Amino acid sequence: MSEVYPWPHKDLLDVSQLSVDEIMHLLDTARSFHEVNRRPVKKVPTLKGKTIMLFFAENSTRTKTSFDVAGKRLSADTHALGKSGSSIQKGESLKDTALTLQAMRPDVVVLRDASSGAAQFLADRLHCSVVNAGDGWHAHPTQALLDAFSLREAWNGAFEGKTLLILGDMAHSRVARSGANLFSRLGVRLRFCAPRTLLPAGKHLWPGEFFSDLNEAVRGVDAVMCLRLQLERQQAGLLPDLRDYSARYCLTMRHLELANPGVRVLHPGPMNRGLEIASDIADSPASLVLDQVEAGVAVRMAVLYLCATRAEQTANL
Amino acid sequence: MSEVYPWPHKDLLDVSQLSVDEIMHLLDTARSFHEVNRRPVKKVPTLKGKTIMLFFAENSTRTKTSFDVAGKRLSADTHALGKSGSSIQKGESLKDTALTLQAMRPDVVVLRDASSGAAQFLADRLHCSVVNAGDGWHAHPTQALLDAFSLREAWNGAFEGKTLLILGDMAHSRVARSGANLFSRLGVRLRFCAPRTLLPAGKHLWPGEFFSDLNEAVRGVDAVMCLRLQLERQQAGLLPDLRDYSARYCLTMRHLELANPGVRVLHPGPMNRGLEIASDIADSPASLVLDQVEAGVAVRMAVLYLCATRAEQTANL
Amino acid sequence: MSEVYPWPHKDLLDVSQLSVDEIMHLLDTARSFHEVNRRPVKKVPTLKGKTIMLFFAENSTRTKTSFDVAGKRLSADTHALGKSGSSIQKGESLKDTALTLQAMRPDVVVLRDASSGAAQFLADRLHCSVVNAGDGWHAHPTQALLDAFSLREAWNGAFEGKTLLILGDMAHSRVARSGANLFSRLGVRLRFCAPRTLLPAGKHLWPGEFFSDLNEAVRGVDAVMCLRLQLERQQAGLLPDLRDYSARYCLTMRHLELANPGVRVLHPGPMNRGLEIASDIADSPASLVLDQVEAGVAVRMAVLYLCATRAEQTANL
Repeated sequence: MSEVYPWPHKDLLDVSQLSVDEIMHLLDTARSFHEVNRRPVKKVPTLKGKTIMLFFAENSTRTKTSFDVAGKRLSADTHALGKSGSSIQKGESLKDTALTLQAMRPDVVVLRDASSGAAQFLADRLHCSVVNAGDGWHAHPTQALLDAFSLREAWNGAFEGKTLLILGDMAHSRVARSGANLFSRLGVRLRFCAPRTLLPAGKHLWPGEFFSDLNEAVRGVDAVMCLRLQLERQQAGLLPDLRDYSARYCLTMRHLELANPGVRVLHPGPMNRGLEIASDIADSPASLVLDQVEAGVAVRMAVLYLCATRAEQTANL
Repeated sequence: MSEVYPWPHKDLLDVSQLSVDEIMHLLDTARSFHEVNRRPVKKVPTLKGKTIMLFFAENSTRTKTSFDVAGKRLSADTHALGKSGSSIQKGESLKDTALTLQAMRPDVVVLRDASSGAAQFLADRLHCSVVNAGDGWHAHPTQALLDAFSLREAWNGAFEGKTLLILGDMAHSRVARSGANLFSRLGVRLRFCAPRTLLPAGKHLWPGEFFSDLNEAVRGVDAVMCLRLQLERQQAGLLPDLRDYSARYCLTMRHLELANPGVRVLHPGPMNRGLEIASDIADSPASLVLDQVEAGVAVRMAVLYLCATRAEQTANL
Repeated sequence: MSEVYPWPHKDLLDVSQLSVDEIMHLLDTARSFHEVNRRPVKKVPTLKGKTIMLFFAENSTRTKTSFDVAGKRLSADTHALGKSGSSIQKGESLKDTALTLQAMRPDVVVLRDASSGAAQFLADRLHCSVVNAGDGWHAHPTQALLDAFSLREAWNGAFEGKTLLILGDMAHSRVARSGANLFSRLGVRLRFCAPRTLLPAGKHLWPGEFFSDLNEAVRGVDAVMCLRLQLERQQAGLLPDLRDYSARYCLTMRHLELANPGVRVLHPGPMNRGLEIASDIADSPASLVLDQVEAGVAVRMAVLYLCATRAEQTANL
């Protein structure tokens, strides 16, 4: 197991802040929690007496529950707060709300917010740890880390020389952004494929090759990461025709036959079956979709553990 | 105490799946938890390290809180998930949501859903235990079991030869359906009384005698189970006149005088006082309404315990 | 430490029910929990096996979270219930809902309700402890107690001879009502300042002097408690002009210069910066706003502890 003591980061804002050694240490830590989660007694006393606040201004039962399960399996106390019913509705600023939460002495605040940069904004103002659970179109570091965990398991640890295709709505995806950064630094070759209206800004800054033809893009890849098509984009005119989109960009078995043997498919969920991913792929052995969900709990346990015990790791040196 | 080891059921979908021995074992188990709930320290370590997900697609604070209290008193971690804010709102199917939940490795998923058969559907697809907390008009097994628990206490264990009247909206009641099955198999004689528009389909399949006149129906019974009148039925034209309904079908003290001495009254709650049950009855010693609520926690503890430790019971043989 | 054994109150409905000795004992108890909250392991086993229900019919994430944190740090199980989704929406009365909750054997029910007197109503009907977390315009005892805690810390325990100005919407403030009662009995001299439309009824019953000019009111005070301006009042015509209000009643640095050296400023939050309190004051060393939030957790731990262990304290005598 790689050794990174003490954990040097108060916050987890994006994967770009982590060195490759730190990423590996985090994934190793997650590996041991992954085993805990498969025991009959899925609980360790590690964070007993710690307080974790889940402040989700955007709806996301899936990610919130994953963090909640992670926190409780570490024996922490967790508190879920939503935007509705919170003081933000009464006109209070995000900063005042966050300072109020901090005054209750949490060890970690997990934040999901619609504004890019919200997590950084809080991290600069709070003494406690801030974990970014998705901020606008900017970053979603635990998603990238759980994707890495899942592919590491599938590939027996060998990232170097593998090729990953990221497919779909690149323009509005924090999943793509965090994933591209992480996988490129792990030695994975990247390809991107999206219709023109859903290409990201600053294409030349992305660490890989762009394709508009999926048949071409998928040839010889070892994994495909499908992105969720956010159907509300259609109203904005970016997706004039879903049937046309699906005909050209929905990943099907026919595409997988062009990929390398043993190709794996990821999707952050929830899936629009038949739109960005064919239903039979989602249920096939190639799919890592449910592995990703399971990895998510383990990775979030690792993140919470490393952040919440950081001070004590230092103290013990 | 009856002995049913190991507990043979992964899921609790309806009472019809349980043998009378199993019902008795479950009620005995609930009896011991009922005592725990009356101690100053109302907690046992039995399910420490187990994860219980409460997935309530329909609103029901009462039942959800009862399961939540039950889970925590067994030292399990509980997670409440609603439909609002969940991925189902984003277009994900119930199956995908359930598989996602399962990937977080819960031991039990408790499901409340508006669709009859939803619990069975999930139970067929998930490895973890599924407990039906009410699915459409189909079944509500823990309600029937807590009713049985309450009457067993009131009757000192003697079901045989007693007569129970189920009164009210039979057509839309999962409470009536599960209760009728359970009590008839325990040796209780059943009567049913409802206005014509609220009679169930397949009347001849119900194990008891039908009455349209409450004065006749109540004569010589040992208990009356009032059903909640769902006021939204009125809009559907099934209840043209609430005053007429209440005049003919609201259980009053005058009716109880026609019943056997020591008659008991049940209601699943929340009550419409003065509509299906007279207010003075609800507050009288004949009422078991609050006993039912208390029994609910104990019965749900027994159900969660038996389901969540099933594998280990088997392993210990 | 003052000694008040056993704690004689089943419920906490308002501060007026507490003797000065009891208030001091409660604040001393809170002091020890305040220290627990600053430890790395912020948890004591005191209320293990106790059940606390947080029944918040009005939205208030801040107060609800504070009670939730308090309960969990004492190792109690907490259950949050809202009005939406509860049986009250289905037409059940507050009394029936409360009796139902009680049948699940909680040790404490914490109630926030829009109706003045709701907490008293429940306390008269329930065997378990009822803690008032704000009822209408009537009382908010834990707010008054946390204000007292914060000022006691700031003033090194010396209340006698100090002067406190309560500023703003007196008419609709349970914070003002509970605070005025508490501080006057602790020996603090009180002043009140509000525009004419926001003066309370029964002015002559309030234990202090009324001012309409803030410049006059603030002269020589040791602390100012700003009240939140509830913006919905504007619609009722009570606040024809917010700019005029803010020009005359917003507390600014210029006002603080008229006060005594070391003057402290309180606000129950959430703040309308620039309306009732100038932004630079909120962030200045004079501000106790975040101390109040931290004190809130400690005070609520003390309240829950004293109520939930009352019977056992008695039993040990």
